[in-house]
Amino acid sequence: MALLVQKYGGTSVGTIERIEAVAERVGRSRDQGHDVVVVVSAMSGETNRLIGLASQIMEEPTPREMDVLLSTGEQVTIALLSMALQKRGLEARSYTGSQVRILTDNAHTKARIQSIDEANMRGDLEKGRVVVVAGFQGVDELGNITTLGRGGSDTTAVALAAALKADECQIYTDVDGVYTTDPRVVDSARRLKRITFEEMIEMASLGSKVLQIRSVEFAGKYNVPLRVLSSFGEGEGTLITLDDEGDMEQPVVSGIAFNRDEAKLTISGVPDTPGCALRILKPVSDANVEVDMIVQNVGVDNRTDFTFTVHRNDYKRARAILEQVASDLSAREVSGDSRIAKVSIVGVGMRSHAGVATRMFESLSNEGINIQMISTSEIKISVVIDEKYLELAVRALHSAFELHQQDDGEA
Amino acid sequence: MALLVQKYGGTSVGTIERIEAVAERVGRSRDQGHDVVVVVSAMSGETNRLIGLASQIMEEPTPREMDVLLSTGEQVTIALLSMALQKRGLEARSYTGSQVRILTDNAHTKARIQSIDEANMRGDLEKGRVVVVAGFQGVDELGNITTLGRGGSDTTAVALAAALKADECQIYTDVDGVYTTDPRVVDSARRLKRITFEEMIEMASLGSKVLQIRSVEFAGKYNVPLRVLSSFGEGEGTLITLDDEGDMEQPVVSGIAFNRDEAKLTISGVPDTPGCALRILKPVSDANVEVDMIVQNVGVDNRTDFTFTVHRNDYKRARAILEQVASDLSAREVSGDSRIAKVSIVGVGMRSHAGVATRMFESLSNEGINIQMISTSEIKISVVIDEKYLELAVRALHSAFELHQQDDGEA
Repeated sequence: MALLVQKYGGTSVGTIERIEAVAERVGRSRDQGHDVVVVVSAMSGETNRLIGLASQIMEEPTPREMDVLLSTGEQVTIALLSMALQKRGLEARSYTGSQVRILTDNAHTKARIQSIDEANMRGDLEKGRVVVVAGFQGVDELGNITTLGRGGSDTTAVALAAALKADECQIYTDVDGVYTTDPRVVDSARRLKRITFEEMIEMASLGSKVLQIRSVEFAGKYNVPLRVLSSFGEGEGTLITLDDEGDMEQPVVSGIAFNRDEAKLTISGVPDTPGCALRILKPVSDANVEVDMIVQNVGVDNRTDFTFTVHRNDYKRARAILEQVASDLSAREVSGDSRIAKVSIVGVGMRSHAGVATRMFESLSNEGINIQMISTSEIKISVVIDEKYLELAVRALHSAFELHQQDDGEA
Repeated sequence: MALLVQKYGGTSVGTIERIEAVAERVGRSRDQGHDVVVVVSAMSGETNRLIGLASQIMEEPTPREMDVLLSTGEQVTIALLSMALQKRGLEARSYTGSQVRILTDNAHTKARIQSIDEANMRGDLEKGRVVVVAGFQGVDELGNITTLGRGGSDTTAVALAAALKADECQIYTDVDGVYTTDPRVVDSARRLKRITFEEMIEMASLGSKVLQIRSVEFAGKYNVPLRVLSSFGEGEGTLITLDDEGDMEQPVVSGIAFNRDEAKLTISGVPDTPGCALRILKPVSDANVEVDMIVQNVGVDNRTDFTFTVHRNDYKRARAILEQVASDLSAREVSGDSRIAKVSIVGVGMRSHAGVATRMFESLSNEGINIQMISTSEIKISVVIDEKYLELAVRALHSAFELHQQDDGEA
């Protein structure tokens, strides 16, 4: 008997039939003796319908009123799901974000949760009720309705799980877990039974769009075991936990992430002096261009080369800015390439295993793939390559690190 | 410069275009220097859409969850109208019933307002803001969302006007005021410039479906001047106020109401003893049949006849109950007729004018219309006639009391 927080996204509650299916699934958890708090999103399409109404009035609606409008989407779902549970003889009770109450700051459309009052939910659970909470929304100190922004329902679920000290936060989605890499690229890609928060964050930020990175960070911070699983099929999905949980041997590499949305820019022959990196990057970030990888090599003759990647959509704009910077700094030249891809191997096992980089580079070299940039963190090595080699590189690395056959330790 | 509460119903906010038109109208009131609180219903069709979703799950959804579901309808409208006002450069701020806060009892789907906290609204008005409030909804002491039932948005508007001591509560509808009688029956029916609460209540309960009777009662109790006017055209509509306002000569009769939804039932030769009326009516009301007119004449030989009217849909059921009662009371017989109509003349002027009944009966007699039942109150005389004479009777009375030419005193 455990306390579970289950989150169902918009597709999982997209029709009355699917809401009934969610009620069935919640009922099975109750039958197994678990206490259940359910967090739901708006029915798929509903949020877009509401945005459509607002955009007929204003191009940029006021954030406060936008939150009042959008929060109705989840409110409809909590009522309908509660009814579907009650129809099955389960006692259920719905709560809006404001009713829970999920206190946030007042940054409308992208508010951050500050605290959760779990007393009402606790009381309902003690009475054997299923608690159904609207995701994505909260309330500020003055009683204004707020929303949490993209992926907000995941964040709500994790925050509730943390506040209630739940045994597990289960995120039901349209995929059945986290994979070693994209199965569309590598046939033998395998669902991971377990992955650490850190690995998940590196995988997510690198393009495995299963969970919003913010909710994973949140879960890691409060040590809420997070499970990603399918709301349509069966199966136990992927459990995301702390590194030190369980005593199994960590695999060296857990997965291969990749991203083909980037472009790289190099400014060569800039003065190798303090403040130089700042003088290059500040104009770029001032123009709201987000920079991902940054590489600077050791300088020669007081001159150095500086390379970074940006989103491909920002390439032209960033390049124009850089030309200006180059002229200001008397740099030698600006070059760039928008036809690149980033491939990363991710794994907490790297910390204790030497030779991982070597194996990665060897594998790419064997395929004749030239590495243009390298960047490393404690649990990740990323390389930039010509985008035409992307699939080849991912397959080669998946095989080199034996991801198709590796057993990650437990069920 | 006045404080106005304006209420716009579902049809008036049924599309984005109409919401924009409401914003225009509110803007004109602001231009005239008035402070404005706007109460809105759900966009027409939205409540039915939500009920449709619920009914796919349960035939009789739990009232608490039904309120959570339905209250989203008005919440969408307050957000959209606030945006439309802001687009016009007007500062505006939306409030749900819970945010105001409109405290109600916990009778879900038909809650009654207990108190209103007007502090937030007052603060916004002082800052020059238009306050936009969701009609039809409130919150109970425990924070549960409640709804007020049919016509609830009218009630919200009147309650806010009372709490804020507004100068006028304006109810915008798809008719341009209250008429002397139904213009579909009498061509020369004329819009009343003014009518009293009492008259309006008698008119409404008798079939002039302009305003919910509950909101008129509420307005009368708190002496909130109520104005019914069209949200599509111009014109000043009909002002509903206390009897003693203004010093104009009251017209004898203000309007002719009628109703063809009733049926009459007579139980003859019942013992003329104390408790007899109770023994007849209790079984009827126990069966949830509502009784409208009740007439009992002076008894002869310790026997009397007892007649009452019920909704036509309840006729057969009420008759079956009455047959049983007749047998228990050894009454002579039960008779009835479902093809009747009720016609009423309404006017506070009756109080001080003799001969009104005589003029009514004479007018009907001149047309050869037989009167089957008569019932009177201080400001109303109702008769039951054969339904085939309904239109004839209404036209005759409209003319007899000179309603087509009467001036009701002021602009």
